Amino acid sequence: MADNKKMVEAITSMDEDFAKWYTDIVTKAELIEYTSVKGCMVIRPYGYAIWENIQRILDGMFKETGHENVNMPMFIPESLLQKEKDHVEGFAPEVAWVTHGGSEKLEERLCVRPTSETLFCEHFANIVHSYRDLPKLYNQWVSVVRWEKTTRPFLRSREFLWQEGHTIHATAEEAIEETERMLGVYTTFCQEYLAMPVVQGKKTESDKFAGAEATYCIEALMHDGKALQAGTSHYFGDGFAKAFDITFTDKNNQIKYVHETSWGMTTRLIGAIIMTHGDDNGLVLPPAVAPIQVVILPIAQHKPGVLEKAAELRDRLKKVARVKLDDSDQSPGWKFAEYEMKGVPLRLEIGPRDIEQNQCVLVRRDTREKIVVSLDELEEQIPVLLQAVRDGIYQKALENRERRTYTCKTMDEIPAVLAEKGDGFVKAMWCGDEACEDKVKELTGVGSRCIPLEQEHLADTCVCCGKPAVHMVYWGKAY
Amino acid sequence: MADNKKMVEAITSMDEDFAKWYTDIVTKAELIEYTSVKGCMVIRPYGYAIWENIQRILDGMFKETGHENVNMPMFIPESLLQKEKDHVEGFAPEVAWVTHGGSEKLEERLCVRPTSETLFCEHFANIVHSYRDLPKLYNQWVSVVRWEKTTRPFLRSREFLWQEGHTIHATAEEAIEETERMLGVYTTFCQEYLAMPVVQGKKTESDKFAGAEATYCIEALMHDGKALQAGTSHYFGDGFAKAFDITFTDKNNQIKYVHETSWGMTTRLIGAIIMTHGDDNGLVLPPAVAPIQVVILPIAQHKPGVLEKAAELRDRLKKVARVKLDDSDQSPGWKFAEYEMKGVPLRLEIGPRDIEQNQCVLVRRDTREKIVVSLDELEEQIPVLLQAVRDGIYQKALENRERRTYTCKTMDEIPAVLAEKGDGFVKAMWCGDEACEDKVKELTGVGSRCIPLEQEHLADTCVCCGKPAVHMVYWGKAY
Repeated sequence: MADNKKMVEAITSMDEDFAKWYTDIVTKAELIEYTSVKGCMVIRPYGYAIWENIQRILDGMFKETGHENVNMPMFIPESLLQKEKDHVEGFAPEVAWVTHGGSEKLEERLCVRPTSETLFCEHFANIVHSYRDLPKLYNQWVSVVRWEKTTRPFLRSREFLWQEGHTIHATAEEAIEETERMLGVYTTFCQEYLAMPVVQGKKTESDKFAGAEATYCIEALMHDGKALQAGTSHYFGDGFAKAFDITFTDKNNQIKYVHETSWGMTTRLIGAIIMTHGDDNGLVLPPAVAPIQVVILPIAQHKPGVLEKAAELRDRLKKVARVKLDDSDQSPGWKFAEYEMKGVPLRLEIGPRDIEQNQCVLVRRDTREKIVVSLDELEEQIPVLLQAVRDGIYQKALENRERRTYTCKTMDEIPAVLAEKGDGFVKAMWCGDEACEDKVKELTGVGSRCIPLEQEHLADTCVCCGKPAVHMVYWGKAY
Repeated sequence: MADNKKMVEAITSMDEDFAKWYTDIVTKAELIEYTSVKGCMVIRPYGYAIWENIQRILDGMFKETGHENVNMPMFIPESLLQKEKDHVEGFAPEVAWVTHGGSEKLEERLCVRPTSETLFCEHFANIVHSYRDLPKLYNQWVSVVRWEKTTRPFLRSREFLWQEGHTIHATAEEAIEETERMLGVYTTFCQEYLAMPVVQGKKTESDKFAGAEATYCIEALMHDGKALQAGTSHYFGDGFAKAFDITFTDKNNQIKYVHETSWGMTTRLIGAIIMTHGDDNGLVLPPAVAPIQVVILPIAQHKPGVLEKAAELRDRLKKVARVKLDDSDQSPGWKFAEYEMKGVPLRLEIGPRDIEQNQCVLVRRDTREKIVVSLDELEEQIPVLLQAVRDGIYQKALENRERRTYTCKTMDEIPAVLAEKGDGFVKAMWCGDEACEDKVKELTGVGSRCIPLEQEHLADTCVCCGKPAVHMVYWGKAY
């Protein structure tokens, strides 16, 4: 028996070394494994199952808002990438180039898509002729490649999985409405399903997507006080349409350019989940995306009737939750630690005495609270408790963000408050001048995260130059 | 109104030019669009929705048989690809090579995965230690790249979408059992869901997957009498395990090599659906994978109550089928042609007189049979009719295959029967010698498709050399 008593190794504590804590979790909860391909990773079954749940929910939300899935090639000819000037300048330095097919040198280099605006534009130009063909509301689920120098699992890898929505519309108004609609979908998804509070905002000019007129984003605050961009939604105006000649005949028989958007979310959401909800015992998963929502652990499972009862509960509860029964011969202590590491929202313990009393013990992963529940009430109680876990971890994340959101009116206050209270969001006024944005970053270490849609008037003047303020900005360090 | 009366253009007839008929369908049914990336294509919403249905059903079958999804990098370092000799020889001539990341030349070239055995092996070697870690039953849904010279949409493209299953087992027996199990899953999927009869068999030595001990396959016969390999399932023995040092400690504390399998199905299934069931009016889709199973077409839709009734039916029928209501102002004739082109299994016509009589007309895409159904019985009748379409097109495909399957006992008979009756499967005996296999191909134009699992004794001697026969083989031309 000795060889099967695996140890659940302890992980580095968050306070000791947050970065090490993070990489401990991604490997010990079996989310990823490193490979010999630098900057790329294997997403293991448990990690991929989280992504499948994210996909399923988001894909449903996209389809409900009228979007259709397509699939574009993974390669972009160099000449196609170069058609939109800002876009190629933004992406060319970080793309992977295919130069040979088999033993033959290609006539033209192909890059592995870092994003697919150019391919969608080429396609739109081919298929759109009349106002009757509009809008086109497309999305694809693929992987993209960006040749990053420094990589971290989920947060920044050379290849990552994502969805990229690309839409074209007859008017600027409709396109802007779409950009905002998808920002709303992303916000709902993060807050309701991932239990992760986000700030909706707009990127400053210097931080916009390459080729966009406006980039909207949602920003979340991680446990360590650093910000993470969880999703972006771009409005392109007719810039790409002009570069790719995407025109249509309108109702009055006039030739017009289309107006375009794109929007994306990636596997970095899994990194965000870890750093928003995790603790020193491992992952804490939002119930909506947890591969296992309830793990059933039989206690004294050698005693007659225990395993049978546990299996009966598994079969019953399948209808209300994603359930796993672990009837392996590992010790209960090992199992407790294992499923805490894996962030399973609810643990259901059932032993001989529970069976006698027609009850079981449910333990919440987030609070470790133990709740005794009658076996007759499990179907009602489990969804209630899963919702309670979601609400609890949302509230905790929100409190962390509120505790770590600081208002600063002078430049000096910024490093002072960060030194005293730790990293977080700094709210401060800004004149709109890029020189001030750069100076804040240089002198205080925090960059502009976004101009929040919900503005507050904190002061009349720019925190940096003292000229009249135009925007209130969230500043912070970022992943 | 004139500008909206689109024409549904006629397609080339199958008998006139089968290849042209095929490419007409893929573009006019809006399955794909060509791109400036040679040999790659856009899979448009209607084509991709077919693939999503294929994925959903197959993925469910994989999960029911205990498989888990993962995601491997899309790149393979050259040195990793070279670890298994037969494998690299098979694939190196047709891979795309990434040589630069941004402006820097890579130290080692990376190929874009043509298949992922080497990546899975590297991962398995990292994570497997004990017999308790076995089996690993993994699958991934990704795209792969093979630098083909001649390409055709779905059938042979430089990038295609697929699933690749990769499993490792403690014993050869278990691995062989898995290879056969997945061949069975593929067979069930093709026959039940795609309504496509297949022959289960084994590839000859010369036709095996690069690095496999045995390659099992399912072969379907297209409408024109050419064969199409619809899926393959490979048994690797411990060849890869030795090349990649994938070992485990067994129950007796002995170090052993694992035994491995892989299996795959691709977007070429969509090509197979087109060429198995399509006709001169366009696509005919198997109901299980049809994006729209029932299209509701209101007749005289300007008459009071027609559109309301049509919308009411759509809402009711959503529960039993994938339904679309086309209430656009196109003419009924245009709509009939459009949804025939798109292969929608059932058309539901509802007009003022139908409403008066509390009935509607259902028209089968495959037979064009019209069935008058009471509106009260639609929920029961539609699933029955969808099943009837599946059974009808399966039967028709089976009859085509039977009509085009010939038994030959001499070499001369082969070209004679093909010339007289058209391309098809030729059943003939074989001694097992590769020289005879090559000679049959050279002299008659048909290659060995597979050694069917269901053997028949047609003669005592090889059709080619006259020596004792070892196998009955299906021969044919292939896509």
